[in-house]
Amino acid sequence: MAEPAAAKRGIPPKDDFNAWYPFMVEAAELVDKRYPVKGMDVWRPYGWKAMRLIDGLTHAEMERTGHQEVNFPLLVPEQLLEKENRLVSRLQRAREEGVDPSELRMDEDATGFAKEVYWVKHAGETELDVPMFLRPTSETAMYTMFPLWIRSHADLPLKTYQMVNTFRYETKQTRSFIRVREIHFFEAHTCHIDEDDATRQIEEDLEIAARLMHDLCLPVLVAQRPLWDTFPGAHYTVGIDVVMPDGRTLQVASVHHYRDQWARAFDVRYEDAKGEHQYCHQTTYGMSERLLGAVVGVHGDDRGLILPPAIAPHQVVIVPVLAKKGANEVLAACNKLQAQLRDAGLRTHLDDRDLRPGQKYYDWEIRGVPLRLELGPRDLASGECVLVPRTGGKSNAPLAGAAEIACKALDAVADELRKRASKLKDTCMHALPALEHSGTGQLTLTESVAPGRIYELPFDGSDADAGMVEELTGLSFLGDAREPFTKARKCAVTGESTKRCVWLARTY
Amino acid sequence: MAEPAAAKRGIPPKDDFNAWYPFMVEAAELVDKRYPVKGMDVWRPYGWKAMRLIDGLTHAEMERTGHQEVNFPLLVPEQLLEKENRLVSRLQRAREEGVDPSELRMDEDATGFAKEVYWVKHAGETELDVPMFLRPTSETAMYTMFPLWIRSHADLPLKTYQMVNTFRYETKQTRSFIRVREIHFFEAHTCHIDEDDATRQIEEDLEIAARLMHDLCLPVLVAQRPLWDTFPGAHYTVGIDVVMPDGRTLQVASVHHYRDQWARAFDVRYEDAKGEHQYCHQTTYGMSERLLGAVVGVHGDDRGLILPPAIAPHQVVIVPVLAKKGANEVLAACNKLQAQLRDAGLRTHLDDRDLRPGQKYYDWEIRGVPLRLELGPRDLASGECVLVPRTGGKSNAPLAGAAEIACKALDAVADELRKRASKLKDTCMHALPALEHSGTGQLTLTESVAPGRIYELPFDGSDADAGMVEELTGLSFLGDAREPFTKARKCAVTGESTKRCVWLARTY
Repeated sequence: MAEPAAAKRGIPPKDDFNAWYPFMVEAAELVDKRYPVKGMDVWRPYGWKAMRLIDGLTHAEMERTGHQEVNFPLLVPEQLLEKENRLVSRLQRAREEGVDPSELRMDEDATGFAKEVYWVKHAGETELDVPMFLRPTSETAMYTMFPLWIRSHADLPLKTYQMVNTFRYETKQTRSFIRVREIHFFEAHTCHIDEDDATRQIEEDLEIAARLMHDLCLPVLVAQRPLWDTFPGAHYTVGIDVVMPDGRTLQVASVHHYRDQWARAFDVRYEDAKGEHQYCHQTTYGMSERLLGAVVGVHGDDRGLILPPAIAPHQVVIVPVLAKKGANEVLAACNKLQAQLRDAGLRTHLDDRDLRPGQKYYDWEIRGVPLRLELGPRDLASGECVLVPRTGGKSNAPLAGAAEIACKALDAVADELRKRASKLKDTCMHALPALEHSGTGQLTLTESVAPGRIYELPFDGSDADAGMVEELTGLSFLGDAREPFTKARKCAVTGESTKRCVWLARTY
Repeated sequence: MAEPAAAKRGIPPKDDFNAWYPFMVEAAELVDKRYPVKGMDVWRPYGWKAMRLIDGLTHAEMERTGHQEVNFPLLVPEQLLEKENRLVSRLQRAREEGVDPSELRMDEDATGFAKEVYWVKHAGETELDVPMFLRPTSETAMYTMFPLWIRSHADLPLKTYQMVNTFRYETKQTRSFIRVREIHFFEAHTCHIDEDDATRQIEEDLEIAARLMHDLCLPVLVAQRPLWDTFPGAHYTVGIDVVMPDGRTLQVASVHHYRDQWARAFDVRYEDAKGEHQYCHQTTYGMSERLLGAVVGVHGDDRGLILPPAIAPHQVVIVPVLAKKGANEVLAACNKLQAQLRDAGLRTHLDDRDLRPGQKYYDWEIRGVPLRLELGPRDLASGECVLVPRTGGKSNAPLAGAAEIACKALDAVADELRKRASKLKDTCMHALPALEHSGTGQLTLTESVAPGRIYELPFDGSDADAGMVEELTGLSFLGDAREPFTKARKCAVTGESTKRCVWLARTY
């Protein structure tokens, strides 16, 4: 039913996700892509409101967990990159000297940022003495200041965050919210007395992320990234990946444990209780508008978006169904209903435009309003209105108790979205077909991998083994599931016994 | 009394404003100026919270008046400047042809922006095909998109705003909040069917500004800028100037009526009811963190800031006065008091640090918390607490009704700040000493101007006359008071009868 109707309206079916997604972000008036710089969209009011509601949830979590909001300059002087480079050299030296395997990573990627930044070398008609770059993220800017703010252990933990625009010169194809060049970015940066306290912060971050994902009703995988996919200078990285409808995964958040590696590069130290200077252990936690991209992608259907009630700019839209007679009475009742819902704290919009109800339904379905209330003369006569949740169904509700019923209906929409998300994830997750060594000793798959699937496997091999599996499957290692297998299994490559559960997927 | 005490603490006296102001913005932990780029401060949590509270007032005003929030990209491609240049050429031509005197302005300043922008010409290791600049303000970016959003008169008025970072390559000396290179900027942009509707928008903007200035308790002058100080492409500009303690004025907001001048340059048109295409008339309204700079400068005293309750991150701080006996009871009562005040909607902070009360008083006085509550064992025994408004005085209040009394005390602090602001303004405003023509026909002042004064004069002369007055006094024309004299007077220069009231001041 839905598909032909959608087609009639010019909406690509959701099965054709690569056509549906870009169509929908503009049709729902989230962004306008016609701004004349590739990968930089204009946020329209409806999209920006949804994003700010997501930000609001994040602000609330930051307040709950005692983080303080700061705001750092966008421009970073070139010389601060040198400290980052020294960090990289140190890690390289550690590798050469075989000191600590946890420090053997990321030598290339750490300077990789330099290839992805926008440079400001001119102002007005003059060439600047010191070139500056637009922050791709704020480690260098912040860790230049932290040593000035931290004196003793009493100043720790330092828990800060900011929401700012960051920039990355993407050479890959851009896509609204998912791969953009100006990023609406959230970044939390913390400093701790020791590794354990930093590790506790990582746990707190993952709990925050879980609460946000619950509000956004998103199906996620939480995985500790493999060494080669760890953030520059990090001890380890945990990625939070959303399972998208096409079975690809989208990293929407990442959490990094830096140990004291950045602190050593930037001299972020404190005086401990004995009066001795110690390096801080640091963490970061990053998210972006990819959260909104995931919401659009996961929940939408052939008729448009479906926004989780927690972030819907309008949670309820009221559509009057007017006849020639009694129009004023119906409008008056709609206004009263709106006041009633707003008093109950619901973001409510009364659509009193001079259009047919069907046109209004269409508009709000595209925009994903989770609950529609219809009210016509006959409903009014019977003291009722009609409830139409965006996830399907239709029922009558007495006008008197409409607010309470609407609240319950919104909870039900969120539950339904979570159920669908969970089903999507279950559908995508599969065990990896068995691997076997061919006659020539080469690893082969006993069965080819199918598109749209995410594979789970017991794995305890080397980086080289992992590389081989990636090549065989054409998929990427997401890393180790935060929850390993409860019972040991045989590693898919080496056959050794292991509880490590590893995921493979095609990523955005 | 206050001055020696402050001096003892290392705070410069406020009379020495040029030392006091930069000391105070850092001592109160609003910003950190040690970031290694001149004119780009780091916002610390306390300062950022105060700024976000100011932004919150602005958001509320925007919502009240039906503006919608958008968010445009920071980077603007060079070619969009060309349209702006064409606008300037048109205005130049109009002048040469003597068409409309209202279009004869700003030819230099319109291109002046090009001299003040930061350029992005490189990304990674490549040189960009199209250079881009960091927005100094968003006319060019927005007016490129507006034609895509506006079709008919039904789409008007279009009322949008955004809060974003903007950039200006300041060559003058920078000063926190007042003259910075990365600006925390509010800008509203509107499109209207005709000049009258745009003029009504200007009136609405000035009403919004008046409401904000009331909340911030600031003493302001509202003046229509002289032609030579009008914004590029504007028909006229109204500036809102705060009277600072040293008698200089600080422009904290400006409102511009563009008529259809920008619309012609960017082809911003609509179809009217008759099906004919018309150019929109546009306005803009801009504000920045200068609002916070004005709050710091106007209200502070020798002991620190005094924040208006509407924007104080902590409206009330509770300081327990602990003795050896009964410490737990006092702390319990303080916690209860905090809960009580928070329930009443007051932003309340309980300072339970292990420090002497005197040290805490000092800290919160510097930070300008408008109301302090002290609670010790003797107060608790008598069921009272001590109220200490930051503006002076001390009284007891029963714990039972503390929330209500605190609300009233905060209102009284705001009233006192407004009274002081009004007094500051009255002290600064003076009639300009009479001008007379010397024997050689040169204009001279009968009495020299005094520093720290703002002068008012009846004026109906030419631009050349105004230039002469500026040169004589060493002051700048703020422009015409929005409220002219009620009775006609003689122009200070020409002697002609006029109701125009003009202000002269030294400006920031």
